[in-house]
Amino acid sequence: MITVLRLGHRRGRDDRISSHVGLTARQFGADKIIYSGEKDSKMMESLEDVIDRWGGFFEVEYRIDFRKVIKNFEGLKIHLTMYGESMNDKIDDIRLKTEEDLLVVVGSQKVPREVYDMVDHNIGVGHQPHSEVAALGVFLYSLNDGEIKEKFEGAEVKVEPSRNQKLTRTL
Amino acid sequence: MITVLRLGHRRGRDDRISSHVGLTARQFGADKIIYSGEKDSKMMESLEDVIDRWGGFFEVEYRIDFRKVIKNFEGLKIHLTMYGESMNDKIDDIRLKTEEDLLVVVGSQKVPREVYDMVDHNIGVGHQPHSEVAALGVFLYSLNDGEIKEKFEGAEVKVEPSRNQKLTRTL
Repeated sequence: MITVLRLGHRRGRDDRISSHVGLTARQFGADKIIYSGEKDSKMMESLEDVIDRWGGFFEVEYRIDFRKVIKNFEGLKIHLTMYGESMNDKIDDIRLKTEEDLLVVVGSQKVPREVYDMVDHNIGVGHQPHSEVAALGVFLYSLNDGEIKEKFEGAEVKVEPSRNQKLTRTL
Repeated sequence: MITVLRLGHRRGRDDRISSHVGLTARQFGADKIIYSGEKDSKMMESLEDVIDRWGGFFEVEYRIDFRKVIKNFEGLKIHLTMYGESMNDKIDDIRLKTEEDLLVVVGSQKVPREVYDMVDHNIGVGHQPHSEVAALGVFLYSLNDGEIKEKFEGAEVKVEPSRNQKLTRTL
């Protein structure tokens, strides 16, 4: 089971990025997202709406105390940060441990220093400033060895992949 | 040479996502981003500031007429969309053609129908609604066979990858 923890959400300013973090987690095989920072019921509800329509078992939670989430998590804890060790050097080790539950922590602008010490690995998906959304997508894609999840149970609708059309099928 | 074309930018609403698209393009080896939609000098300037500091040859442009950009581009044109053909089925073909210049088109909320016919391939990085930022990151990561760019010439600063610290070196 893979849980993503999104730190430091700010209502308004972060709603689109945080929602992309949630949807990316879901697409690339995570089972749950936990938001921390400011509580944003509107953003979480619109995420739930997408999940209702497109299926899959994906949980959306809010927790005010991210420290407790990290501390109490039983399993392997990874923090994605441009300051961390190179993903490509560490991903095999991490993949070997995926019988354990996995917590993937992604930050916002300022991640408290202590987070770096609370996790098992700080991992850089590249060492340039880019995007927690891209970092999460690439990390999970790589963790899954390039497989991309296609099956989302209980969906009302799915895409019919097409060369040049927008086709969906109602289920 | 890889160019990313970001469609339909809206000032304010899209500034963070569009800026993440640009930074992700740069991290994963693209050479240029072209923004279309509303002109947003502030967003583009803050992107330029990052590039000045962190180095690399990465161009940032604005073009009002995205149709012209696509039509006049000489090389292989890819549009990333959840409605497209599966990336993992197509990436080998696309990789074989990388002696050609590559244009990677990423949309915003509503991509005009005609874009689907103006490109060589519509490619789905998964077929679920998620994020153009994650889709771009995973596509470029996959295109580069999992190599992540580490060398950015002319940088003022770089990260010293670390197990649990935030270390940078001034160059």
